[in-house]
Amino acid sequence: MHALNETHDPALTSWVDSANAAGTDFPIQNLPFAVFRRAGSDEPFRGGVAIGDRIVDLGAAASAGVFEGSAAHAAQAAAGDTLNALMALGPAAWSALRLALSRALRVGSGREAALGPLLVAQADAEYAVPARIGDYTDFYTSVHHATNIGRQFRPDNPLLPNYKWVPIGYHGRSSSIAVSGQRFPRPIGQTMLPGESAPALRPSRRLDYELELGIFVGTGNASGEPIAIEGAESHVFGVCLLNDWSARDIQAWEYQPLGPFLSKNFATTISPWIVTLEALAPYRVAFERPEGDPQPLPYLDSPANRAHGAIDLQLEVVLETERMRQSGAVGFSLARTSYRHAYWTIAQMVAHHTVNGCNLQPGDLFGSGTLSGPTLDQAGALIELTVGGKQPIALPDGETRTFVEDGDTVELRGWCEAPGAARIGFGACRGTVLPARG
Amino acid sequence: MHALNETHDPALTSWVDSANAAGTDFPIQNLPFAVFRRAGSDEPFRGGVAIGDRIVDLGAAASAGVFEGSAAHAAQAAAGDTLNALMALGPAAWSALRLALSRALRVGSGREAALGPLLVAQADAEYAVPARIGDYTDFYTSVHHATNIGRQFRPDNPLLPNYKWVPIGYHGRSSSIAVSGQRFPRPIGQTMLPGESAPALRPSRRLDYELELGIFVGTGNASGEPIAIEGAESHVFGVCLLNDWSARDIQAWEYQPLGPFLSKNFATTISPWIVTLEALAPYRVAFERPEGDPQPLPYLDSPANRAHGAIDLQLEVVLETERMRQSGAVGFSLARTSYRHAYWTIAQMVAHHTVNGCNLQPGDLFGSGTLSGPTLDQAGALIELTVGGKQPIALPDGETRTFVEDGDTVELRGWCEAPGAARIGFGACRGTVLPARG
Repeated sequence: MHALNETHDPALTSWVDSANAAGTDFPIQNLPFAVFRRAGSDEPFRGGVAIGDRIVDLGAAASAGVFEGSAAHAAQAAAGDTLNALMALGPAAWSALRLALSRALRVGSGREAALGPLLVAQADAEYAVPARIGDYTDFYTSVHHATNIGRQFRPDNPLLPNYKWVPIGYHGRSSSIAVSGQRFPRPIGQTMLPGESAPALRPSRRLDYELELGIFVGTGNASGEPIAIEGAESHVFGVCLLNDWSARDIQAWEYQPLGPFLSKNFATTISPWIVTLEALAPYRVAFERPEGDPQPLPYLDSPANRAHGAIDLQLEVVLETERMRQSGAVGFSLARTSYRHAYWTIAQMVAHHTVNGCNLQPGDLFGSGTLSGPTLDQAGALIELTVGGKQPIALPDGETRTFVEDGDTVELRGWCEAPGAARIGFGACRGTVLPARG
Repeated sequence: MHALNETHDPALTSWVDSANAAGTDFPIQNLPFAVFRRAGSDEPFRGGVAIGDRIVDLGAAASAGVFEGSAAHAAQAAAGDTLNALMALGPAAWSALRLALSRALRVGSGREAALGPLLVAQADAEYAVPARIGDYTDFYTSVHHATNIGRQFRPDNPLLPNYKWVPIGYHGRSSSIAVSGQRFPRPIGQTMLPGESAPALRPSRRLDYELELGIFVGTGNASGEPIAIEGAESHVFGVCLLNDWSARDIQAWEYQPLGPFLSKNFATTISPWIVTLEALAPYRVAFERPEGDPQPLPYLDSPANRAHGAIDLQLEVVLETERMRQSGAVGFSLARTSYRHAYWTIAQMVAHHTVNGCNLQPGDLFGSGTLSGPTLDQAGALIELTVGGKQPIALPDGETRTFVEDGDTVELRGWCEAPGAARIGFGACRGTVLPARG
């Protein structure tokens, strides 16, 4: 875990006034990374850091001489259209850049004249997937989700015997990952309805979201050389929000014996901003196993992981229907939970993924798996909230939902708060389902 | 399917003498693509085409003015360190380049003086993975493999009800794919031995190979826009050999409910040469379903797929142990089969993969899944040949094998022959297992 340092000081304020506003996701203690350009322009996409409602253009700032030494080198590495080069530099470079940004953006830094003109309003920006994602791995780290959904797919056998030993994961699709704002047609696929003796090709009737975190790998490892849990977090660049859209009816028919495929790979939405692990340091909490559960095998265990392997990161899912948009209503909150309830930590994911010699590369993405909390109102997917579609959710204005309908927008939100620390947020992760192609 | 044309004429001979030798994998009718450089040099990797025991350096040939028009453009696109740009150009460009190469390399072409000095000996070359593989998808297209291995993992339920309807696939790991010559330590992972009540971390004791084809996507599709089966093959660049190394004991413990993960992602070996679908045209055969099996759903069916969706591509697995190497013995043939026995065709894989709107990109790779034939001696993995490790295979000189041992090299071979057509081959796909890391 990163030690707390001057960049976390909750008393810091910025000369960018909007960064000091109550409730902003992007105070000076956050400083998350994205890839952006002015919306609708033909400017190149490039790396930036959020401050209040503005973006620091890292390449432009580096060229203007705002940074020195390894911070300048790191900012220059972020000037391209992906953050892979910055991710590959490693945690010392990321920290140097964070510290330099924190100092330059503080009230009284003397950098306002140089940096101010280089800021871009977030309202004017559009974003790209922030890294060239070589491989995307989706984990399954919520025991509550595994139990809830296992009950739907395997009523007699919800939680499989390996769950409490193995940080279950599988490979997902990189090509269909897009940033917040993604709009995609309802997927079509083979499904078999109750009473049918043969499948048919048709639009999914059980389209769902999954509330997840995305975890970007920074530095990788060579093939055959595992990353030990003790140093695992130093390989992680940061965290975003991730919606692992899932077609439950396609999944139920296709997933045996090799796992989900077309039920997942049509779309995955991530928030554009990556919050670094260093920014998350004030919100780390102990990783605890329920009484009576097996202790992790040694390669998945360390004193640091036990002491503060988890993160108390608040998460919320908000549904915005077409009717709500037309009536000007705000979205409806479907669930709230915290990432602290995950059964496996980020360090455990890294150590497990590489223990067989598998090589990670800068820009690789992990999904946490659906982050359901211990009670049903904390569930991270509709299939859990509606008990497999059997108990519809009542929305305002007489609407109900069992699964996601055409025109629905699902927004994921995330933020951290702790005593003696600033509140930081992740920005929005929004995706919208369009009607199936005719 | 590509129509037969002058490039397939079995009577063609080349001024590169070795291309006319009986038994060569690379006669003038083949012309497969790879990415190569002189071994041990610091030359850039670049695209090349095999002819006999030589390689045509495509960028150098283009610069020397050997090609014209779209063939020149295609050759220039292959000058970089991956073939993605060539793959993205599409089938008309690939065919133009093939035709130009065929004409330039024929006896009497008049191009010998210009091209001859640009040829590199394969004996002096090393190869790289020929494309930047955005996503790797492994299918499961052999019903014989699915039945054989299903019997090991699910004795009561070997072939699942979806198998004859769904071309089952799942996403695999791109980062650990390497070309022939790959050497990797035996993977370590969680396994549970008979009689144990808890898993332990240890080297795999049931390490296996899987005989597969690799299928490289050429042109992709936009998200949300499926590729219909009728045009599916025009999106496919070509085919290589693929060994999907698998740790069966890790797999058995981890694979429920989301599929194989660490049991597969430590290493995948492909042959460096990609044989184009056009080169495979003479060996196409009818795609037939066994009497009584369901017909494919309409999106997986077309007259062309029925008429010649399959490929009669001969495959062989050869094992070379440390003792064989020391005694100078040739490798031992473990199995032979043909790709014609696959239950799902390449066109069906493409149509299925995209029917939900999933986008493919140039350079994406499909694995066919283990290609076991109808009889047990045609099985493409040791777990089948040894009936789950219970019936050891006798090798020469008193050796036996149930699974792959340290020092073993597994070589996959592939070739096509047909009446009225040349014999073409794939070159070797070799990988070697080293001892587990201490």
